[in-house]
Amino acid sequence: MTTHKIRVGMVGGGPGAGIAKAHRMGMRLDDRYELVAGVFSRSLEKSQQAAVELGVDPDRVYESYEQMALQESARERGIEAVVIVTPNDSHFPVACAFLEAGIHVICDKPMTGDLDEAERLHDIAESRGLVFALTHNYSAYAMVREAAHLVRAGALGELRIAMVEHASGWAWTSVEDDLNNKQAAWRLDPAQSGTTSLISDLGTHAHQLLRFVSGQEVTEVSAELNTCVPGRRVFDDAQLQVRLANGARGSLWVSMAATGHEHGLRFRLFGDKASLEWCQMDPHYLTLNYPDGRRETRVQGHDSQSDDQARLTRIGLGHPEGFIESFANLYSDIADVIERYRDTAQSACQDRPLPTSRDGLLGVRFVKAVDESHNAQGRWVSIAL
Amino acid sequence: MTTHKIRVGMVGGGPGAGIAKAHRMGMRLDDRYELVAGVFSRSLEKSQQAAVELGVDPDRVYESYEQMALQESARERGIEAVVIVTPNDSHFPVACAFLEAGIHVICDKPMTGDLDEAERLHDIAESRGLVFALTHNYSAYAMVREAAHLVRAGALGELRIAMVEHASGWAWTSVEDDLNNKQAAWRLDPAQSGTTSLISDLGTHAHQLLRFVSGQEVTEVSAELNTCVPGRRVFDDAQLQVRLANGARGSLWVSMAATGHEHGLRFRLFGDKASLEWCQMDPHYLTLNYPDGRRETRVQGHDSQSDDQARLTRIGLGHPEGFIESFANLYSDIADVIERYRDTAQSACQDRPLPTSRDGLLGVRFVKAVDESHNAQGRWVSIAL
Amino acid sequence: MTTHKIRVGMVGGGPGAGIAKAHRMGMRLDDRYELVAGVFSRSLEKSQQAAVELGVDPDRVYESYEQMALQESARERGIEAVVIVTPNDSHFPVACAFLEAGIHVICDKPMTGDLDEAERLHDIAESRGLVFALTHNYSAYAMVREAAHLVRAGALGELRIAMVEHASGWAWTSVEDDLNNKQAAWRLDPAQSGTTSLISDLGTHAHQLLRFVSGQEVTEVSAELNTCVPGRRVFDDAQLQVRLANGARGSLWVSMAATGHEHGLRFRLFGDKASLEWCQMDPHYLTLNYPDGRRETRVQGHDSQSDDQARLTRIGLGHPEGFIESFANLYSDIADVIERYRDTAQSACQDRPLPTSRDGLLGVRFVKAVDESHNAQGRWVSIAL
Amino acid sequence: MTTHKIRVGMVGGGPGAGIAKAHRMGMRLDDRYELVAGVFSRSLEKSQQAAVELGVDPDRVYESYEQMALQESARERGIEAVVIVTPNDSHFPVACAFLEAGIHVICDKPMTGDLDEAERLHDIAESRGLVFALTHNYSAYAMVREAAHLVRAGALGELRIAMVEHASGWAWTSVEDDLNNKQAAWRLDPAQSGTTSLISDLGTHAHQLLRFVSGQEVTEVSAELNTCVPGRRVFDDAQLQVRLANGARGSLWVSMAATGHEHGLRFRLFGDKASLEWCQMDPHYLTLNYPDGRRETRVQGHDSQSDDQARLTRIGLGHPEGFIESFANLYSDIADVIERYRDTAQSACQDRPLPTSRDGLLGVRFVKAVDESHNAQGRWVSIAL
Repeated sequence: MTTHKIRVGMVGGGPGAGIAKAHRMGMRLDDRYELVAGVFSRSLEKSQQAAVELGVDPDRVYESYEQMALQESARERGIEAVVIVTPNDSHFPVACAFLEAGIHVICDKPMTGDLDEAERLHDIAESRGLVFALTHNYSAYAMVREAAHLVRAGALGELRIAMVEHASGWAWTSVEDDLNNKQAAWRLDPAQSGTTSLISDLGTHAHQLLRFVSGQEVTEVSAELNTCVPGRRVFDDAQLQVRLANGARGSLWVSMAATGHEHGLRFRLFGDKASLEWCQMDPHYLTLNYPDGRRETRVQGHDSQSDDQARLTRIGLGHPEGFIESFANLYSDIADVIERYRDTAQSACQDRPLPTSRDGLLGVRFVKAVDESHNAQGRWVSIAL
Repeated sequence: MTTHKIRVGMVGGGPGAGIAKAHRMGMRLDDRYELVAGVFSRSLEKSQQAAVELGVDPDRVYESYEQMALQESARERGIEAVVIVTPNDSHFPVACAFLEAGIHVICDKPMTGDLDEAERLHDIAESRGLVFALTHNYSAYAMVREAAHLVRAGALGELRIAMVEHASGWAWTSVEDDLNNKQAAWRLDPAQSGTTSLISDLGTHAHQLLRFVSGQEVTEVSAELNTCVPGRRVFDDAQLQVRLANGARGSLWVSMAATGHEHGLRFRLFGDKASLEWCQMDPHYLTLNYPDGRRETRVQGHDSQSDDQARLTRIGLGHPEGFIESFANLYSDIADVIERYRDTAQSACQDRPLPTSRDGLLGVRFVKAVDESHNAQGRWVSIAL
Repeated sequence: MTTHKIRVGMVGGGPGAGIAKAHRMGMRLDDRYELVAGVFSRSLEKSQQAAVELGVDPDRVYESYEQMALQESARERGIEAVVIVTPNDSHFPVACAFLEAGIHVICDKPMTGDLDEAERLHDIAESRGLVFALTHNYSAYAMVREAAHLVRAGALGELRIAMVEHASGWAWTSVEDDLNNKQAAWRLDPAQSGTTSLISDLGTHAHQLLRFVSGQEVTEVSAELNTCVPGRRVFDDAQLQVRLANGARGSLWVSMAATGHEHGLRFRLFGDKASLEWCQMDPHYLTLNYPDGRRETRVQGHDSQSDDQARLTRIGLGHPEGFIESFANLYSDIADVIERYRDTAQSACQDRPLPTSRDGLLGVRFVKAVDESHNAQGRWVSIAL
Repeated sequence: MTTHKIRVGMVGGGPGAGIAKAHRMGMRLDDRYELVAGVFSRSLEKSQQAAVELGVDPDRVYESYEQMALQESARERGIEAVVIVTPNDSHFPVACAFLEAGIHVICDKPMTGDLDEAERLHDIAESRGLVFALTHNYSAYAMVREAAHLVRAGALGELRIAMVEHASGWAWTSVEDDLNNKQAAWRLDPAQSGTTSLISDLGTHAHQLLRFVSGQEVTEVSAELNTCVPGRRVFDDAQLQVRLANGARGSLWVSMAATGHEHGLRFRLFGDKASLEWCQMDPHYLTLNYPDGRRETRVQGHDSQSDDQARLTRIGLGHPEGFIESFANLYSDIADVIERYRDTAQSACQDRPLPTSRDGLLGVRFVKAVDESHNAQGRWVSIAL
């Protein structure tokens, strides 16, 4: 059986947009998507240039996302899904436009910068019944899936302690002073990204990953935010304590000033039977530690592991897969769900655990709770579920 | 500036062909190739099925490689290059057919199973002046390039000792008894693959990688071959000693019976200033050890590293890239060379260090020397350069 | 030049006293002490038995520490120093008795269980001018000394973030239910050890180690204490946030319920130039991470390292030293200071950085501040310096 | 029950003798020996100085080992054992003198420099029935004992491949040109140590360790010796292939020119069920690798491990023990055997697997076989068992 490729459009992702490259490589790897339309830039000219480079028909490059949503939904063989890789503050209107046009949405995280918008977008996404996938790609790594499987299978027993870090070193020094560093200019400008961009950018990944693997909601947070780099106008380090729904406790360390770290994303979960650790830098390994002194590292790609892990491993047996493959995994799962939707008009995805608008909403609530706690000198703040 | 994608055909790579998938994913990642023709199987029916899955026009699926070479070379906008992923014993005639038709060749390793064919193919490739790339993908890992750069820049000083391992565990037990395991059936049958398929398959990778990184030729070898798994009819373990052109010594351990290993590819080089190690399982790291007690691991993706490393890193800074990316790196370099050829009709590639027919020829000579040494009780055997 | 061995007595350390063994092995390794007197147990009979095993003259086994302090101080060639390895709540009276008798004190940590006693003991120790060494052995590891040296030499630049863990797994399950486990019975009984024995036992090590290496005082703490193991009557997990004197922030995770960990002691310090990490489990390594992508692990025992490191390395060059050697290092430094005292009647020790009564006092204040913060729902509590 | 300490004398071990320090610290750690006599140097004056430092009665410092053997054996409460830490070429006469005087011998390795002497010493040691222990300390590491236990318990299945390295970097450059480096002067002078001192010094450790852990004898060797450092007059690198009694194959890499290594001692054994690896640099870990993708590192000091491991662990649970403890372990086992001898006049030691004169003899035969093979261009040479 063959299926036609999924036709997608993209909003954002023009010249210099780093994360859009990862999205496109993730789509290409398993060859299940074709990029056929887009608004790649606010400038139509730049957008057309990008279209040439990306092999997109110039007739399907639009002046605005509204126009694209309208015309593509009206068109025969128009796009089935849109990928939104614009700055966070535009996610809400763009996503709404496409959902209202009956087009599935694949949206970069965080879902929105504003809590009210997050609540509304979640409601809209739920009510339309379309696929809404938030691209928390880290939970699509094969061994993160394996970890989630093991936790649910009881390998750790009851969860007690969760230690999560997303402590990057990317902004260890005044990168915002480099005029060529557009990422820095945008992310470190409080006017554009708020003072808690650290939590929006990295903290939401840590939050989603913890929830995904542990199966526990984060119910309360106590936050200590700090600015390490002199002259910086946003927070660049966060020491967070969390309480989980089952009573477990933990810490999330989120930073962009962890000098000497690269991306610094890892988690450790401790249950009453064993503990488990995973590090994004070495994603093909997953380690379980047992109280009898065994530290058992499981290597990706063996038959002994879960179906989910197997499905998301392309080569296996010592041929490591990395970050781009995590995007490809996510896009592969999204493709499965969209293909089923064609037949069933259902967006449910129990065996394809995509991050959804609910994850997006909880992530934005988490950002706001961190902000509130910090402003109250670290008081514990609840997060509505 | 934009360039049209490189039009390629493929010989081999039908259902179940593992390595062809890696080739195709490698081509897709950076979107510089389009697969437009093929003989994917000896069975035309299976070949047509594969074409549908791969999105190849059925009119460009051929009954034989000879036909494909003829018709594509005659066609306007025919293929510029062919990817050969057939069993080793057919590499020679297939490669010759396309070279003679003026089509660049991208050929899986080992170049041939027969030394005489290797000699002739090398001569033909040289004389035609086309691009002939052998897909030793490991030397295209970014940090292997970094290693080669460091060695040439003198970071190790004069090379003294080389320790290379390609000690896989894939055939640790009687996998050939599993009728569903077609890889095993083929590779472990002396009638199809010879008794030294271990050296052809894995040993040639180790040999090429050593030569690539060290910049030294392997001039002599002393071999001890063994069969570990009872009942097996080919050698599954090889302990090799080597002498290098500059007088350095070393060992190559090549195995498919290294129980508990996955792919087991790594190298360590010791000079008179420092030593260096790299492991394919963790390819984004490269470690230099200094006599003053510093063990310096360099992480892929930093500006402080070589241009070659930078060029072959897509995301960087803690977003690991793996095996598929190594294929993509190789295909990216091949694309650069083919694009230049369009303008210059030159296949030279000094700054794009592709494995060529010379590497293929030396690899086959190495296989033969190992065989000869083993049959002479480990006598040292010279390898012509 | 030779010096006579230092004559020591011991209070505590009879049958089953684990840590006393480490003290005695630490004293023996470099052969600079002789154990000549003791009150090894509350039972004189058990004390005498221990004396026989330890080769101590039965005439110098005493019924009480008071008697021992009196008689040894009066005796010609009496003990010069006493080692106190009794339960924490008796450290105060025992230490006072010997200090008042003019005998140097080597006291197990924490200094006392009671803050008032700690304040008084510190005053007495200061005013008597004798050697008072608290056996925080971890800061005597050679590579911890190296770390402290590097921090002071500016290798990290200005400290920003400190992440310290003493997350043991020793009490991961209800070890207190095992009647043979006397350690557990004692440490996990709130009546004997208080509900915050976790902080006294392990937290004070983490606190001292952080202060020692960073050179920064801990000025404020916010604490979240928890009991993971059902039925347990003391806290077994602590998530602590700290503020340091220079404005740096950090987290201390202290646990005895970290399933799958052994001793779990490690620190990471991040400055504005580089970061540094050390793990007690692999104490002969120290890693510096630089923002240019180098992770530099320094191996104990090289000339390129600090004098302090060199002095505390016995064999070096790949012959690892461990926990017992850390005690030996501490006892070696104490011996140096006591030997100087013989000549100078000065207990100052700038180049032998022994933990003193001030470290003990700050440790007890830290325990109390943690307790107070937890009781106030994690409010930030200041620690007097 | 108490036993008196074992009275030992020492031959060698005066000022600057590195390994003698390790012997003495090994004896001290568990306090079961007292050093009461010695010939510490050829110079009586230096010997007396050493005695003062070591707390040895000057009346029991002798002019010659012959005198010491005679007088101590005649004396009431004379030494029960002698520790021989002289240069290799004097081991034979010294050991003979003490064995003939009825005194147990603890002899540094290699047993002798000369094969004929080794044969004779083995005969004498066997016929006298005294304890003769060769101080191959590495096989006394707790996790090496655990490894040997696991191999015998079938954890690996049938052994197939053995990869052993003792590749030190200590002589990576012309250390023999440094006049203050007495170790180098002695070990790198062919007149004093022969051209194969590398094999005597380090190779015999690798050989004994392989035999000890695997339970397999080395029956044949093929050797390639080399001199890396220009101007050096002895071999400093050896690439050895071996065949074991059960048909397994393997490689031993022995070097003193492995730049950037410290001591470089490690082994990996591959069976038909699993593989196992241990590294002296991190001796408290032992890793088993399984074909299902689990890499299981076992940490020293857990109840789940063998009795032998438990007996040789002092603290455990994350308090690492190292090189000095390996000597202490060996001395502890020797003490057990000597104490039994007091009662039984038997030196048998099945449950205390000490290296004996047979190990010493096989080691010297191994050295000679390596030399012979190298001189015959790597021809396979048999080793008599």
